[in-house]
Amino acid sequence: MKLTSLLLARFAQALTYSSHGPPSSVLYLDSLPLPDLTPTDVRIKILAATVNPSDYNQLEGTYPIKPTLPAVGGNEGVAEVVEIGEEVRGLNVGDRVIPAVAGFGTWRTQAVTDESMVKRIPEMSTISGAMLAVNPCTAYRMLEDFNKPEQGGWVIQNGANSAVGRAVIQICKARGVRTINIIRQKDNDDLKQELLALGADKVFYDKEDKELSSFCKTIPAPGLALNMVSGRSTIPLLKALGPDSALVTYGAMSKLPMSIPFGLTVFKNITLHSYWMTRWTKQHGRSELEHTMFNDIADMCNSGELVPPPYVERGLRDYSSAMENAFRVKQVFINDPKKFLKVH
Amino acid sequence: MKLTSLLLARFAQALTYSSHGPPSSVLYLDSLPLPDLTPTDVRIKILAATVNPSDYNQLEGTYPIKPTLPAVGGNEGVAEVVEIGEEVRGLNVGDRVIPAVAGFGTWRTQAVTDESMVKRIPEMSTISGAMLAVNPCTAYRMLEDFNKPEQGGWVIQNGANSAVGRAVIQICKARGVRTINIIRQKDNDDLKQELLALGADKVFYDKEDKELSSFCKTIPAPGLALNMVSGRSTIPLLKALGPDSALVTYGAMSKLPMSIPFGLTVFKNITLHSYWMTRWTKQHGRSELEHTMFNDIADMCNSGELVPPPYVERGLRDYSSAMENAFRVKQVFINDPKKFLKVH
Repeated sequence: MKLTSLLLARFAQALTYSSHGPPSSVLYLDSLPLPDLTPTDVRIKILAATVNPSDYNQLEGTYPIKPTLPAVGGNEGVAEVVEIGEEVRGLNVGDRVIPAVAGFGTWRTQAVTDESMVKRIPEMSTISGAMLAVNPCTAYRMLEDFNKPEQGGWVIQNGANSAVGRAVIQICKARGVRTINIIRQKDNDDLKQELLALGADKVFYDKEDKELSSFCKTIPAPGLALNMVSGRSTIPLLKALGPDSALVTYGAMSKLPMSIPFGLTVFKNITLHSYWMTRWTKQHGRSELEHTMFNDIADMCNSGELVPPPYVERGLRDYSSAMENAFRVKQVFINDPKKFLKVH
Repeated sequence: MKLTSLLLARFAQALTYSSHGPPSSVLYLDSLPLPDLTPTDVRIKILAATVNPSDYNQLEGTYPIKPTLPAVGGNEGVAEVVEIGEEVRGLNVGDRVIPAVAGFGTWRTQAVTDESMVKRIPEMSTISGAMLAVNPCTAYRMLEDFNKPEQGGWVIQNGANSAVGRAVIQICKARGVRTINIIRQKDNDDLKQELLALGADKVFYDKEDKELSSFCKTIPAPGLALNMVSGRSTIPLLKALGPDSALVTYGAMSKLPMSIPFGLTVFKNITLHSYWMTRWTKQHGRSELEHTMFNDIADMCNSGELVPPPYVERGLRDYSSAMENAFRVKQVFINDPKKFLKVH
């Protein structure tokens, strides 16, 4: 074994935090020794790892899943198996894997872990694999598990330009389901065109209440609304929904409680659900349901029906900028020593 | 036939309205001719009819069920069948019946109607029969249809002194289910004692946040919350609920939208339902489910496990006072020409 390989095998670079606080302050790049493999361990090389809003909240200490400190940041990412213990049966060198548990700590170059802590994913690009577990799966499950829209039917969502929102648009498009998309207007943006190009049927700015309401009179009422904004932005969704429908909330980007007028829900019998991918994965991880979902999403990624949202590639060293821009555009740590800033 | 009987048979007194507006202004006592019976008609004598908040809203024109005007007010009440057409098969003279449809117009002395418009109820007191269809049935169904509490389990509700709230307390008591009850504090009231005497396990004023929260730490978390207040009063219910639980909203006495913080619902997976008795009855009226419910409630009424809420008996002539006090205490029109004000 060459000296360089030996060094690579023994240490990993990792974005670590020892206390909670502002993410760009509490994170530091550490060099962690890699233990020898037990018979059921695998060594994985992290290829790419995302920064999700929940990672940010986890560093702040405001998220309900709190790893023991010091901890490595990051929950989502794709890795390649580079070495396996002698009793490992489920994985082979060269397999692409993602964490099987919450709080894995994906912002590192390598890890040694029991094979049960990771799971194999179907073949897809590195970036699609890195972004698989949270956003496309959230979109997929919300469209599958709550008042599932039929072909030709309509779904309405706010925050439609979010990573989940874009996945919703594309999955619906692929299934022949039509989408009404609400976004916040910024100066001179061309977001409407961008979402229409992705496959959105209609896009409204959140100020276009009247236009939305007029349009809704011309279509069969949606039976499903997806809400990631909360606050008063929930109300146009409730107004648009038809009888016996479902509103699923998966975020509160407005940082305000949902405002739910009784009359809007009771007479149309709207049920309000919350969706949390982490809970679903805890309950259904490694199930046939998950297997089918991963394969469906991989197929859509490989056919070009589902493309990643805009993102910025960064090296681990560039963590301050990654944290500072985490809510503006998706940040992805790429494990490449020669990595420099690259925007997609 | 005596002349007096003839007159009684030909006309009914009825509280009628020809336009929407303030109920005590738009109502008037009218004399309506009673048509001859067709073969499938029955003639019924209304014995007692309640004033519910939704009747009030219906007169104002703010309720989604709007009868063609002029219309007779009232949706709930109990009647006795006094005459039947020759082809009536489902009813006999002497049967006690309640309306089978919304918007029947119960604030009248008599009515001639197709037998399909009314349905027989089990034996129970006139007042229990008059109050059967809305409040005890709402309480019964919410306890039956959403995350049904087991014996020994806990339910939490606000507006616990309402007619539905009192029925919830008593039905739970009869089933060995325990209740946490939240009420608004008024000066010198003895409402806590009153509800404890009805069978409430715990009663808190809405200002007693800390006491409620401390108490909740000592019990298995409720899986069901019943909300009739809405606004910010929804929050203590969400806080008290355990994982995978249900909050059912059946009113908004605060006249404010529910305020639902995302973090409180998503991590505990709380689903928010609305309940509307009118819809249930439209879907399940005359079903085996309804039959069982009526019998269960009649049994509880007859055994004294379920007693009516405080109410005031009034003659039809006294409608102004009935309307003015409708939100303060339950008003019941009693069909007795000698009727004068009587408080229970």
